[in-house]
Amino acid sequence: MNIFGRNIRLSIFGESHGLGIGVVIDGLPGGIKLDTGRIEDEMERRSPGRSGISTSRREADKVEIMSGFVNGMTTGTPIAGVIRNTNTISKHYEKDLMRPGHADYTAYVKYGENRDYRGGGHFSARITAPLVFAGAVAKQVLEDEGVSVGAHILRIADVWDEPFDPVNVSAADLAAVSKKDFPVNDDEKGEQMRERILAAKNGRNSVGGIVECAAVGMPAGKGEPFFGSVESRLSAMLYSVPAVKAVMFGAGADFAAMTGKEANDEFYIKDGAVKTYTNNNGGINGGITNGMPIVFRAVLKPTPSIAQKQRTVNIEKMENAEIEIRGRHDPCVVHRGAVVIENAAAAALLDLLYDRF
Amino acid sequence: MNIFGRNIRLSIFGESHGLGIGVVIDGLPGGIKLDTGRIEDEMERRSPGRSGISTSRREADKVEIMSGFVNGMTTGTPIAGVIRNTNTISKHYEKDLMRPGHADYTAYVKYGENRDYRGGGHFSARITAPLVFAGAVAKQVLEDEGVSVGAHILRIADVWDEPFDPVNVSAADLAAVSKKDFPVNDDEKGEQMRERILAAKNGRNSVGGIVECAAVGMPAGKGEPFFGSVESRLSAMLYSVPAVKAVMFGAGADFAAMTGKEANDEFYIKDGAVKTYTNNNGGINGGITNGMPIVFRAVLKPTPSIAQKQRTVNIEKMENAEIEIRGRHDPCVVHRGAVVIENAAAAALLDLLYDRF
Amino acid sequence: MNIFGRNIRLSIFGESHGLGIGVVIDGLPGGIKLDTGRIEDEMERRSPGRSGISTSRREADKVEIMSGFVNGMTTGTPIAGVIRNTNTISKHYEKDLMRPGHADYTAYVKYGENRDYRGGGHFSARITAPLVFAGAVAKQVLEDEGVSVGAHILRIADVWDEPFDPVNVSAADLAAVSKKDFPVNDDEKGEQMRERILAAKNGRNSVGGIVECAAVGMPAGKGEPFFGSVESRLSAMLYSVPAVKAVMFGAGADFAAMTGKEANDEFYIKDGAVKTYTNNNGGINGGITNGMPIVFRAVLKPTPSIAQKQRTVNIEKMENAEIEIRGRHDPCVVHRGAVVIENAAAAALLDLLYDRF
Amino acid sequence: MNIFGRNIRLSIFGESHGLGIGVVIDGLPGGIKLDTGRIEDEMERRSPGRSGISTSRREADKVEIMSGFVNGMTTGTPIAGVIRNTNTISKHYEKDLMRPGHADYTAYVKYGENRDYRGGGHFSARITAPLVFAGAVAKQVLEDEGVSVGAHILRIADVWDEPFDPVNVSAADLAAVSKKDFPVNDDEKGEQMRERILAAKNGRNSVGGIVECAAVGMPAGKGEPFFGSVESRLSAMLYSVPAVKAVMFGAGADFAAMTGKEANDEFYIKDGAVKTYTNNNGGINGGITNGMPIVFRAVLKPTPSIAQKQRTVNIEKMENAEIEIRGRHDPCVVHRGAVVIENAAAAALLDLLYDRF
Repeated sequence: MNIFGRNIRLSIFGESHGLGIGVVIDGLPGGIKLDTGRIEDEMERRSPGRSGISTSRREADKVEIMSGFVNGMTTGTPIAGVIRNTNTISKHYEKDLMRPGHADYTAYVKYGENRDYRGGGHFSARITAPLVFAGAVAKQVLEDEGVSVGAHILRIADVWDEPFDPVNVSAADLAAVSKKDFPVNDDEKGEQMRERILAAKNGRNSVGGIVECAAVGMPAGKGEPFFGSVESRLSAMLYSVPAVKAVMFGAGADFAAMTGKEANDEFYIKDGAVKTYTNNNGGINGGITNGMPIVFRAVLKPTPSIAQKQRTVNIEKMENAEIEIRGRHDPCVVHRGAVVIENAAAAALLDLLYDRF
Repeated sequence: MNIFGRNIRLSIFGESHGLGIGVVIDGLPGGIKLDTGRIEDEMERRSPGRSGISTSRREADKVEIMSGFVNGMTTGTPIAGVIRNTNTISKHYEKDLMRPGHADYTAYVKYGENRDYRGGGHFSARITAPLVFAGAVAKQVLEDEGVSVGAHILRIADVWDEPFDPVNVSAADLAAVSKKDFPVNDDEKGEQMRERILAAKNGRNSVGGIVECAAVGMPAGKGEPFFGSVESRLSAMLYSVPAVKAVMFGAGADFAAMTGKEANDEFYIKDGAVKTYTNNNGGINGGITNGMPIVFRAVLKPTPSIAQKQRTVNIEKMENAEIEIRGRHDPCVVHRGAVVIENAAAAALLDLLYDRF
Repeated sequence: MNIFGRNIRLSIFGESHGLGIGVVIDGLPGGIKLDTGRIEDEMERRSPGRSGISTSRREADKVEIMSGFVNGMTTGTPIAGVIRNTNTISKHYEKDLMRPGHADYTAYVKYGENRDYRGGGHFSARITAPLVFAGAVAKQVLEDEGVSVGAHILRIADVWDEPFDPVNVSAADLAAVSKKDFPVNDDEKGEQMRERILAAKNGRNSVGGIVECAAVGMPAGKGEPFFGSVESRLSAMLYSVPAVKAVMFGAGADFAAMTGKEANDEFYIKDGAVKTYTNNNGGINGGITNGMPIVFRAVLKPTPSIAQKQRTVNIEKMENAEIEIRGRHDPCVVHRGAVVIENAAAAALLDLLYDRF
Repeated sequence: MNIFGRNIRLSIFGESHGLGIGVVIDGLPGGIKLDTGRIEDEMERRSPGRSGISTSRREADKVEIMSGFVNGMTTGTPIAGVIRNTNTISKHYEKDLMRPGHADYTAYVKYGENRDYRGGGHFSARITAPLVFAGAVAKQVLEDEGVSVGAHILRIADVWDEPFDPVNVSAADLAAVSKKDFPVNDDEKGEQMRERILAAKNGRNSVGGIVECAAVGMPAGKGEPFFGSVESRLSAMLYSVPAVKAVMFGAGADFAAMTGKEANDEFYIKDGAVKTYTNNNGGINGGITNGMPIVFRAVLKPTPSIAQKQRTVNIEKMENAEIEIRGRHDPCVVHRGAVVIENAAAAALLDLLYDRF
């Protein structure tokens, strides 16, 4: 199912080593000005090959906008963004050895002999590039409506960044962190995280982490009961991002240890608007935005591609085997994942913003 | 958006204090035998008023099956299950004081003056009754296909139950725990949990917790890239359940502290089938089932209705106010939530099972 | 697939001889006043048993509104309308003899042994009762927005009524015809039509016809390319009404004989608004409303249930057979069909009205 | 809404004079062999510029398959087909004069100043090229399942071709007509039709017509009540094709003049299978296929672009005006429309074929 959204619909396609990847975005109004330079910046933030802590595969990730966009403005009809794959080395990929932690085996079961196994095919994290394109478009539309989205690396391995203040986080805070190459609130912690990544790389291993994302400026009243809650729609989007294995809103897992008295966000009036003193609910009550910052976290597992010998199966011969993964891989996907999650969330939030009532 | 599912479609309706609540289930094949006694048992497990640790509102929750079901068999056309509300006391509910942690304020923003505010209206946890009906139907259909689902209370406040063994959990294990009144693997821990709940009640407070759910027997290859992943569809369903604020698959949040070497589930062949030694991925690779048990956790926040004075706003007068919630409330929703989550998950899993390829 | 609509979603259920039938309507805003008396009138217009030209099965078709409606106002959450079947005589229906022109055989193939065959089950025209309920609600919401819908019998057998004037038809014209028991513009033609129906009945036969429907007041700009055209969405709805076998917009089939010069509706400005001199396109250009009256026709086939011996098959024995249909049947469904089509169209038009841009 | 389908999902994009047009096809299984030569043939059949009776705009309409297709086989993931626009002359198009019969005015209302007005933009019949690509893929998949689809020109102006025999039409019949450049059953009638088209062209006018389409080999039991009928889903697709203004199944509009006795298709058993003697219902009972040939007709209006002076409005100045349309236009779209309808129908039929039960 390559389609997401109710009001904004994304249709995504492509494989890691195919001709190209892309996305069709339907549902934007006409007459929205889009700054393609900012879209390119966003693509660049996600793109691989920029440092020792990411894969050395270098992709320009130049998006060609095929439709729906004339003279710098949306026309109101579907926007198709297409990215050609240019730097593909397929020889590293073996068809019959299932890489642990990857989708090789499940793709085999689902699609059979003719799956595109090269580089994970359609399951490759490379398919997040069109998602970032869609999000970069969405972020500009959201900004026109006064909504800002930003994400930072909250944790890599045992190093934690300073979390967002769920009550007071501002558009400026989000902008500040989201333009960084390595998006953390505390750059010293960022240095330590980089060290953990390089250590993992040197140990032919990988590390996981947590991305925290926030949105400010979303009006109250977005999201719908029963099955269209903000949490349902955001988590459905976030779980489309490869490596995400947990999603938590507001106090998230910490709610399990709280009492109702501690957990409830009491209301008060400030400058004629309803606010809450705390924001344990992450800006969402009953699945609907309450006007406070929307705050959530996504846990990303460590990159499954590690340069160590692992036990696996040869699916053709149906026998036990060993695999040593070669190729160019990220020892950690959390920093690039932060860019993806920020943009994926923007796409989902725009869909929510367009709810009617 | 009251509709869930691609292959099985649920349409839910109703308010806590209205005439009735219900669900329409579309997409089941004809000729499936349903045991209505077992459906009643499931409704009974969720139903309120059975003990000191739940609300004293007593509802028979008798489901009248209006269509799609003749002589104990599905006909293949939509099954409508309707439950009349019988025991409603609306006088406890004040229209203008927004209960902290509840959807009162967001419902006000979304629907305005004419929202049904009595007992939370459509946002009431009571609306999970038809969801349990749908799940009880789904569980029987799943069983016919060899799939079992079960859930237990993993944690309430500071007390933890024994988790499921993610590699070896069996249909028998799931059946054993899911038929308990207070579903825990370790009944001693269950006793301690009950104590925590009663203590919270006595302190006019409430407690939260975690539900762990597992499914065994799901064939490999279910779920779809890019936006139709098992995690996306299960989490979208789980976040429809009131009080759920975090959803985690497999090792979940623990992935943040693991290395790739630790996290990867290595493959091997056993009795001609592909298995994994560990199951950190919770039975899901690349969003697709891999044939191992599907394991996930949902965190439920403490009941927001507590019998203490709380700060809030009077939305009509737009001024700060205080509220003391009366009425009949659960000091903890985790034990009833376990039943809801088990059944909600069953409905989502049946939808996944019917994916075509 | 029991669900219709993008912005307004209808979920329909029920069988002719089951416990009850109904519909869930989701997507209406809160705070809309609904006159239940007018809804009852609409149900009464469709209801059987009122004259010699319809079936003698008498059903009160009393709709119980279970949810989403308090103190005469919508709450904004799903409205469930449930109608109990009261007057069912199932003995007339034979399970194994497939009635020609009906869905007996296709239901057998699709659902197998356990289909509900009594009275056509879910395929019965009786299931249009909840559709009329949904349409009666939609008509009131449309009226609040200045949109009127009306339908008349354009043709029965060889008798034609006066068609609507596609350029000048007014809300008053629509209201005048749509409140008639036998909705025709020219009552003399209506008398002749009744004679044709009675003649068919006496001849143990049935007759078909055409319903013409129009809507005025729809703003320009509704509907969407490519797959969301007004024609696509209206026709999808109309073809859900049993017996409809052709749907035509504006000049419809007559376009085949026209030249471009004749067919094009030239524009001009009147009182500051864009109008067309003619309205061959039925108010729709490129799938989008242009502000002129929306005009379309639906052809209904003659009732398949006729009291004559017909050749058929016994599906159990898989051998040729004969059938003589008993029971209470309409010798013509066009007059009741006009009510159904008017209301079904209203539901689809409301869905279109709520398109965002 | 650029998305069609439940089981097969098409996402279409592009404008007549933009960078390119295309479609993403999701939902095909892996391992289906596709003959790209046959796809090219189908594109060629639709492509403009091949004769005096079509527009002189010449487009290669070369489809680049970006994804989902490796070594001549589908992989199971989305197939994106992209066609670059090469031969665009935009100077002929005036922004402010609304062409009668076109979507210029409705696009202006819907999208405003920034719509892509060049050549009709997204409303151009050129957008049917990706639809033909999708249909050409679908036809091959259908053939693997024993289903054949074919269409012919039934009527242009006053000239009628021989209709298909609705009971006995065969795959060979369909193949024979669908490979013709000018698809008619009776080539003499075809010559007369060409004369009518040339006469219209010479008179700076245009003509309309009817396309008849049939499918054989569809198994009984496809389609779904209540809103998923074969007629609903086929007509929704057909009404997406520009110029279609009427859709009729089986006897279609003729049902209005028939009695039940005449209209009913009586059943009998032939070689162990259930057949009908006649096929007035066009292979569909109760919205479900009955195993007989599926037969339907679509009426196409005359091309609105005619080289005569027409009255219109200048939308910028909001005043009455005149327009003389230049550019390269078809004096008749029915022969190219037959190719589009055949392929569009194939895409919708494949979606129906994949219904589960």
